[in-house]
Amino acid sequence: MLPFANIAIIGLGLIGSSIAHATRAQMPGARITGFDQDPAVRARATELGFCDDISDSAGAAVIDADLVMLCVPVGAMASTAADIGADLPADAVISDVGSSKASVIAALTEVLPEARIIPAHPVAGTEHSGPDAGFATLFQDRWCILTPPETAVKADIEKVRAFWEKLGANIEIMDAKHHDLVLAVTSHLPHLIAYTIVGTASDLEDVTRSEVIKYSAGGFRDFTRIAASDPTMWRDVFMSNKDAVLEMLQRFSEDLTALQRAIRWDKGDELFDLFTKTRAIRRRIIEEGQDDAAPDFGRHHE
Amino acid sequence: MLPFANIAIIGLGLIGSSIAHATRAQMPGARITGFDQDPAVRARATELGFCDDISDSAGAAVIDADLVMLCVPVGAMASTAADIGADLPADAVISDVGSSKASVIAALTEVLPEARIIPAHPVAGTEHSGPDAGFATLFQDRWCILTPPETAVKADIEKVRAFWEKLGANIEIMDAKHHDLVLAVTSHLPHLIAYTIVGTASDLEDVTRSEVIKYSAGGFRDFTRIAASDPTMWRDVFMSNKDAVLEMLQRFSEDLTALQRAIRWDKGDELFDLFTKTRAIRRRIIEEGQDDAAPDFGRHHE
Repeated sequence: MLPFANIAIIGLGLIGSSIAHATRAQMPGARITGFDQDPAVRARATELGFCDDISDSAGAAVIDADLVMLCVPVGAMASTAADIGADLPADAVISDVGSSKASVIAALTEVLPEARIIPAHPVAGTEHSGPDAGFATLFQDRWCILTPPETAVKADIEKVRAFWEKLGANIEIMDAKHHDLVLAVTSHLPHLIAYTIVGTASDLEDVTRSEVIKYSAGGFRDFTRIAASDPTMWRDVFMSNKDAVLEMLQRFSEDLTALQRAIRWDKGDELFDLFTKTRAIRRRIIEEGQDDAAPDFGRHHE
Repeated sequence: MLPFANIAIIGLGLIGSSIAHATRAQMPGARITGFDQDPAVRARATELGFCDDISDSAGAAVIDADLVMLCVPVGAMASTAADIGADLPADAVISDVGSSKASVIAALTEVLPEARIIPAHPVAGTEHSGPDAGFATLFQDRWCILTPPETAVKADIEKVRAFWEKLGANIEIMDAKHHDLVLAVTSHLPHLIAYTIVGTASDLEDVTRSEVIKYSAGGFRDFTRIAASDPTMWRDVFMSNKDAVLEMLQRFSEDLTALQRAIRWDKGDELFDLFTKTRAIRRRIIEEGQDDAAPDFGRHHE
């Protein structure tokens, strides 16, 4: 009753290795073949043993697969697709975990026009990267968004849905363009802002870097977590979802300017009104199980 | 060997109640008298029992005190000082926990020109507010910055230092103006940006609020925590540390514009370089014990 029996995972970083761990845990009958273009990652993945087999090439990894999961940075999707093209079985479903979807669909369909492509985006992660960072429960109670193209076969969509549900995720099906807009605000803009403020704070003349680190518990440290995410992955996300990111950034900048003006002109009521409104959002995120109710994210206090 | 024997805590929110809990735990011989201007908070504090006594007026709370801790929003420091003026013992040390210091010193010295003022800022907190939010270990291994005015008596500074050290904090002594600049970047700017992005995300036409909440695990939820902080406290912080906050905001906006331009013109290398640099800061914050090394702030994954 497994949705897929032979799973090829291309890219063995945080997400690829977590899929392998979770598949092992939830679908022990499935065979997992892994590949990563970095030989050091392949060697480490072999040591960690979360795949049944590690191939020496992307093509060799997919040759018997009925599901191919591309877990590479979105900028590497096209070249990875080209690498597996010759060996991809005609009936294999090809999926990915990229954080932007319209550009990934365009890249994959151009390189593999005949492939059965069901793109996916598990909205989950940590700030850690690489094959050691993965764990089996990463997708538990997180959302996984499928953005099947119009030509997708319904049975393929249902199999990919079943696969992610077994990994613990809740599924939503969405148009790729809308996905890119939603994620621009819930994920891409937050990362961009976090990277910016960490950069700003480390380049001051009057405040030393030691001071920034020492007093980071005042709020700054929260931003450093997502600003420690994988640089290649995030560079590619911003390049591949440019329009939506720039649109959200524009809105954010306008709102920030309004707040700046309220501070400059001592409009305390405007500040108070906004600060009151934002509390409600946090409450709903917790109610819907998307964050920990414990104070301070449940950080250890003792 | 207690630095102070009779401690009056004015304002029984997160910080005031945490000081009471921590004093109980670390200096059981000290007597704690509390007051809050909100009768509901006084009633709740009486139920919770973290003070030896709850007074009905600020003046009554301080009448026997050798240490008075003002734990009210920074905008309420002057009126609170006025309320206690007539009853404040001449040899009592008066301290506070405000997040901006130059304006607090100005307000307190104007209202109480003869008082022995040793301002302090414990760089610690959670997003929760009120008398139920406090706990004894909040200040453990956090920094507490003292900003004594030039006229301060050395013995008073040492007693306030000893008090905070007993609560578990590490002490730094700093000029008030420099404190305000440092905290503008490590605390005030992060809060302002978090409030802004949460506001931006909740006012979109093309993305619903439900979608923002549902997919918040992509990064957005991290910002909602500090954007759930006490609105009155934060309104006052921005109003009272206006110049430093506007200065830091200006720098942040410039950096954000540079990043925006890099995205618009496909300058991936610039993005990659910044994203690589920011990782190092996170590493140092963890090394220096100012955040949890566990992925995702140690959020529970299962």
